[in-house]
Order: sequence, then structure tokens, then C-alpha cells
Amino acid sequence: MCGWGPGGWSPPFFPPATGHVCGFCCLSYDPCTVSPLQGGLSQDFVEALKAVVGSPHVSTASAVRQHHGHDESMHRCRPPDAVVWPQNVDQVSRLASLCYNQGVPIIPFGTGTGVEGGVCAVQGGVCISLTHMDQIMELNTEDFSVVVEPGVTRKALNTHLRNSGLWFPVDPGADASLCGMAATGASGTNAVRYGTMRDNVINLEVVLPDGRLLHTAGRGRHYRKSAAGYNLTGLFVGSEGTLGIITSATLRLHPAPEATVAATCAFPSVQAAVDSTVQILQAAVPVARIEFLDEVMMDACNRHSKLNCPVAPTLFLEFHGSQQALAEQLQRTEAITQDNGGSHFSWAKEAEKRNELWAARHNAWYAALALRPGRVIVGHVGDGNFHCILLVNPDDVEEQRRVKAFAENLGRRALALHGTCTGEHGIGLGKRQLLQEEVGPVGVETMRQLKDTLDPRGLMNPGKVL
Amino acid sequence: MCGWGPGGWSPPFFPPATGHVCGFCCLSYDPCTVSPLQGGLSQDFVEALKAVVGSPHVSTASAVRQHHGHDESMHRCRPPDAVVWPQNVDQVSRLASLCYNQGVPIIPFGTGTGVEGGVCAVQGGVCISLTHMDQIMELNTEDFSVVVEPGVTRKALNTHLRNSGLWFPVDPGADASLCGMAATGASGTNAVRYGTMRDNVINLEVVLPDGRLLHTAGRGRHYRKSAAGYNLTGLFVGSEGTLGIITSATLRLHPAPEATVAATCAFPSVQAAVDSTVQILQAAVPVARIEFLDEVMMDACNRHSKLNCPVAPTLFLEFHGSQQALAEQLQRTEAITQDNGGSHFSWAKEAEKRNELWAARHNAWYAALALRPGRVIVGHVGDGNFHCILLVNPDDVEEQRRVKAFAENLGRRALALHGTCTGEHGIGLGKRQLLQEEVGPVGVETMRQLKDTLDPRGLMNPGKVL
Repeated sequence: MCGWGPGGWSPPFFPPATGHVCGFCCLSYDPCTVSPLQGGLSQDFVEALKAVVGSPHVSTASAVRQHHGHDESMHRCRPPDAVVWPQNVDQVSRLASLCYNQGVPIIPFGTGTGVEGGVCAVQGGVCISLTHMDQIMELNTEDFSVVVEPGVTRKALNTHLRNSGLWFPVDPGADASLCGMAATGASGTNAVRYGTMRDNVINLEVVLPDGRLLHTAGRGRHYRKSAAGYNLTGLFVGSEGTLGIITSATLRLHPAPEATVAATCAFPSVQAAVDSTVQILQAAVPVARIEFLDEVMMDACNRHSKLNCPVAPTLFLEFHGSQQALAEQLQRTEAITQDNGGSHFSWAKEAEKRNELWAARHNAWYAALALRPGRVIVGHVGDGNFHCILLVNPDDVEEQRRVKAFAENLGRRALALHGTCTGEHGIGLGKRQLLQEEVGPVGVETMRQLKDTLDPRGLMNPGKVL
Repeated sequence: MCGWGPGGWSPPFFPPATGHVCGFCCLSYDPCTVSPLQGGLSQDFVEALKAVVGSPHVSTASAVRQHHGHDESMHRCRPPDAVVWPQNVDQVSRLASLCYNQGVPIIPFGTGTGVEGGVCAVQGGVCISLTHMDQIMELNTEDFSVVVEPGVTRKALNTHLRNSGLWFPVDPGADASLCGMAATGASGTNAVRYGTMRDNVINLEVVLPDGRLLHTAGRGRHYRKSAAGYNLTGLFVGSEGTLGIITSATLRLHPAPEATVAATCAFPSVQAAVDSTVQILQAAVPVARIEFLDEVMMDACNRHSKLNCPVAPTLFLEFHGSQQALAEQLQRTEAITQDNGGSHFSWAKEAEKRNELWAARHNAWYAALALRPGRVIVGHVGDGNFHCILLVNPDDVEEQRRVKAFAENLGRRALALHGTCTGEHGIGLGKRQLLQEEVGPVGVETMRQLKDTLDPRGLMNPGKVL
């Protein structure tokens, strides 16, 4: 990864051993600009929407539309023509049917915390906000599964599960809608041990574009595995709202960790940190989190959070298990880091001390924002997934151009290493070209065929993925 | 599960707590009957096949066709009109294109070890045997991945990996083709810890029905996770040869276990054994295998293998890890079994003693075959996946009829418990009706749409899945 310093290009320090790196550019938030209403919806149509969900649950107010036309990414705001809040799946079905018959685009909306412009209504249309459908429907502790509506966020679910002995570990940065996380194929710091949404969604209830209701694994079913027919669940996970509207998700739960230990270690080089990571995984240490911060990031964190960490490539690790198991995992890990020239190996058991130890990682986002000019790397190194954070001035058009070019080059760098252009955020608006380069022409044709089959009118979240 | 004893129906002893059971009926092997050549292939067409792969690699001999018209299931032999052996993916592509243009059905063939009639050429056609493409193409130990051609079986791969520190854990009973395992979404005794094929296939190279070459995750790519576009890999895994021909698979490898411990425990009831299983999983004991044999099976094993095991519902467990970790896992597990009335808890570390302990489980199939009349249950209880083994007389038409009805009822029992009709074998020929009941009309419509899109002429392995 190249970094821009004051002197121009720094030598690349891309971790060479990985074949599965991916990158993304997380740019500073671009405040929404109001787009004039394009075409708009007829009064009759708006009345028809009200007839489905009730007047209080339809809005064409400018501020409301603006709010629903952007996410947390740099993509400029593209507001829908109306926002609606259905109360149940039957209303969602009727809304879809209504919009589809009238040729009106449909954009599903959860928490608006995506980072690829997934909710930008590039052709206007109706934003269907699922936030009012917020029930946790069914918890099966013996079967390790739960059913949630789209208004349920991951933190809300884990709060609900607090005394059940189970938890849902997929943890993207935001407190996102779980159904939204299913739609984007989200992931987080725990993926190295617990997997991503792809590994943790058992069944989806989806309203198809024409209003028909699909249960991807069959209505009400939850099981640990199946070989029954085509994997529809897998198809809709990560489909980014372009194939249908997810109205509930059956999720796989995991036993809550008995105890947790956090650790950090500094390294003389990025290579040493990456080698340690590979060796820890090869040793089958069931590490729960393994995160990498480069030295620029460590320096930023020291300054921002008044810490005193070594300014060096650093690994942040977390282990889950019994007390006995943790002691051994820690021991093995320390030995591996030492073999790779690691220093300042520190660890902590109690929650407060663990939080202190991980302060740099927790505050990375804010420390990065405070750093100007600055480019840093933060990554879920256990999955070979890094985030390259670039701070830009939204008013500097030239800088925006350079950053966009950089982001594309970064994606291509990952592709050149047999990786993917997006490890966990989806394709959205901005990576459609890179997706073509990633999967090739037959891959794109195949995806296009699937899209055209399930959404022949091209009304489900237009302009995304393909 | 109901069992037929000499006195008629026994009381059901279906594990009540599980919502994810699935079942299948494994019936005794039905020797192949020769079907008259249906329609057949023109001499010109056979010459065209020879022009692609060379004369030695095309056969229309009756015995060869018979051999390729059945698998290990009860489904009667339906031979193809010809068998061809391509040497490389280019030939596969040309074969597919040739067959597709001429409206000739295509049936991919690996090891012929499936159990759902997946290779029966119900409309005749060309059987494309992939066995000559048997290279292990690319091993990436730092990235935990390997690329294999369809002629590579799981045991061949693990033999190849012997000194690499890695292994591929998915272990269906047969020494099956890994690409065939991907096609059927196979699983095995290790799934409770290591997952099924769905969790362990990173990328597939697929020749589409019309001959185009698709790389489901992009050519040459291997990574630990991605959120890039529609999950084509997931769509082709488990598609049972009905959407394309898999010509290579990129698989996820795992660190080879440092040490292994096996254990067994007898229980006063099926419920006690199942409760123990649930509690072991809730305690996050990372059990590698956890298998259940009912008392009929235990009795059969004692008689067949001259053992002296308690004739009671029994769990067979295996643990992988470091010596230290294993000791603790064993301890916790024993405590849980004791809480549930378990007895005769035995364990072993060395390979020879482990094999002795698991003798009953290893010989279950043969012991069952030796038992007549007999019906037994064997299961991967950690996944809620059981196999109900029924011994039938292939010449007794009435018995065949009753068994078929029983198998359907069994599947429906699983469905009624929110489970699946097939946990690991696929749908094939015999479970198409149950699939409809499992996923419902919209699910079937959606699958049908996908099938019609990718195979508009309906020539890829006709008569399977849908």
C-alpha cells in the first residue's frame, strides 16, 4: 500500500504474502446536497402509498427524503421521491407490488449506515424504510437461532440475548440493521473466528420485486445445514437490495464466550506482523479478533487519545474461551510473536483493562479523522482484509479526483493479488467497474442474467452492483 | 423415528428438542438393469465427440454405459447413450457446446458415489466423466487454499497434504470427488466443527451448459471473504450438476489437528444423548465429531464386530487440539454426560485405541447390512442430522413400496420440525417432491427461474432437483 506523505510517494508496504487482501477507501462524510425532484410521483400514486401504510407512514418532505438518500459514504445524496414506513410484511408486499406495477424504483432502507452508497436513489423512486418492523420474533436457544425483523440492530439483538448464553458475533463498525447486514454480506472484527453474514444467515424472508413472498430456505425453517436445492439464502445475502426486500432474517447464534483476553504486540515491520498472523492461524489458535494498525495509525492514536503506544506496526488480538484455554492460547501467541521480532507484548483479562489496551483500535476512526493530512491502514488482518483510510477535503475537487483514482488503484492492487475489491462493504455505487474486473465478463453476464430474471423491470435499487 | 420390530410399530423416539433434524433413507444397493438405448446418438454425433476428446476417450459400450448410469443409491440404473472422458477444461467446454447445440442432455460424472441418483441419465445423453482431470493445481499454505480438478478425491487430497500442516476436513462416507462433493453440497462427521462444502468452497470453475467458462469468484481468486456481487459460488455449490459442469474447485484448508482424542458414552435414553449434545455445544466445547448410534445399531455392531459395548443410545465424540486443550474439553464433556445420566464414559488418545473405541461407528454400515430384518439410526447429532438405515429385499416389490412411503414420511417428519429433507446428500431424483414441500411454491418458482435462466434448454442433468 502506498502512502502519500509530505514528500510524495512512500515506498509501498503492501503485505506480500497474502493472496486474499482486499481494500476499500473510507472517505470523509460528504454532506447531502438537495437534488431537485426528478419527475416525481403523481398525487394518485402517493395516495395509493398512503392507502397501504396509512398517511402518517408516508412522507414526501424534503428533509426526510434527503435523510434517506445517502449513507455514511462519500457518495452524494440522491434522495428518493417518497419515504414509506410499512408496519408488517404484508404491507411491504403490497408496496412492492404497487411500485412494480407502476414502474417506480424501490430502495430498501435499514439504518443507512452502509459505506458504498447503497441507498442512493439514483433514479428516484420510493424508499421503503423497514425501521418500524423491529421485532425479535423467535429465539431458539437449543437450536442456536433467532429470527429478527429489519428494524433490529446487532446491538439491540445482543442486548436482548444478554442472559441467554448466546450472542450474535458479526460486528461491523456501525450498529447496523441485521437484515441490512445480510443484504450487504457484512463482516467485522470477529470474522476470523465466527465468520461473516454469509456464514451466519440460515433463512431469509424476502419480498420479491413483484410482491411475492419468498422464504429462501422454506417458511419457518432453521437448521444447521442443508443440501436441499439451490442456495437461495446465499444468493440474497450480499445482494444489496437489488433482488428483493429482506423482511426478516433467521440468524445463527453462538455460545457467549466464557472469558475474554485481549493482547497487543508491536512489530519491527508490517511483514513481521503479517507473518505472525499467518503462523497463529496455522497453529490453529482460535483467535477471535486479530487486527492490524500501521505506524501512522498508531501515531495518530497516541496523539488523539493521549496514549503511549509504540509507534510501530501493531497487532491487536482477542481470545475467547475458558480460563484454562485462554492461558494456553496466549502463551502460544506470544511465542509466535517473539519468533517474529515482536515486542511490548501486553495482555489483559478484565473488561476495563482490555478496553484500555484496545483503546487505539477502538478510537482508530476518530484518530484518523483528526489526522490531516493523513492516510492510514487499519485491518482485519486475520481475513486479509484491510481498510485504507484517506482524509479528504470535500471542497477540493482535484483532491477528490486523486483519491478516486487512488481508490481504484487500490482495488486493482488487491485484484492483482487474487483478492477481492470489497471484503465486507459490498459493491454499491462505486465499485461496479471493479466488480467487472474481479469476476470477468462471464461472471458479470451470469450475475446480470440472475438480476434480469428476478427483477425483469430493473426497479429494485437501480444502479447498484451491476 | 418409528422402528418396525417384529411386533409392528414401536413407539416413536424422535429427538424432540431439535428443530433442524433431517433424515434420509439409505437403501440397499439395487443392481443395475440395462435399459435399452433410448433414441440414441447419431453416428455423426459420436464422431463429433471423438473429434473433441479423441477416440479412446469415447465409449458407447453397454457395460461402460451401465456403470455410468447409477450411483450408490437404490435408484435404478439409467445409462447414458455415451460416456466421454475429457482431458482438460477446454475439451469440457467444447463438449458442452456440442451437446447443447444438438439438444443432447449432459450428465457430469465424478466418482459415482452419490446416494440420490444424481447421475442417472433419465433422458439418455452424454455422460461427461471428469475422472481424467485429476490434478491438484495449486496449494497455498499461507492462504489456506488449494485448487483441485474433479478427478481428485478427498482422500487423495489429504494424502497429498500430509506434510503440509493442513488438511481438508469435509468427510462424507465415500472417497468422493471433491468437485462432486461441491456439486452435492456434501458434508460429513466433521461438519459440526469444520462446516460442510458450503463453508469450504471459495471458488469454482464451471463450464456452463453452452460451453462458456465461468469462474464464480473470478479467475484464480482465493480469499477468506468477499462481499463482491452475487454469490455465484454459493449458487453452484449444491446445484447437483443441473446448472453447469464443475471443472475445478478452490477449497478452504484447515490446520491439521495437533492431537486427537476419541470418547464414547452410553445413555439411558435418546433424549439424554441429545440433551448432552446440545449442552456440549452451548458450552462452546469445540467438538470435532459427535455421532449418535441408537441401541439397535449398538446391538448390531456388537454382533457384527464381536464387540462388547453397552446396548444403549450412544454418543461417539472426537476432539482436536493441543494436549492441554483436549484434557479440558474431555473433562467438560464428561461432566455434561454425567449430568444427563451417561455411563461407561471411555476415551483414548493413541490412534489404535481410538479406532477400537470408534469401531462400532466405523463399522455401522456393514453391521447394519448384516442385520436383517433391521432398521437403525445413525447420526451426525451435532448438526441434528441423522440417517435412518433400512434394509430391504430388492426383489420384494411390496417391501419396496412400504419403504418408499416410509422414507417420504420420514422426510415430512423432519419438515414438520422446521428441518430439511436432506442434510447432506442433495435432492437428486428421489426428493424432488419433498423439496417442493420444503421451500414452498415461491421457493420452487424462484429455483425454476434460476434454472431456466442458466439452462434454458433443460439439458444439464435433466430430472434432478426440480
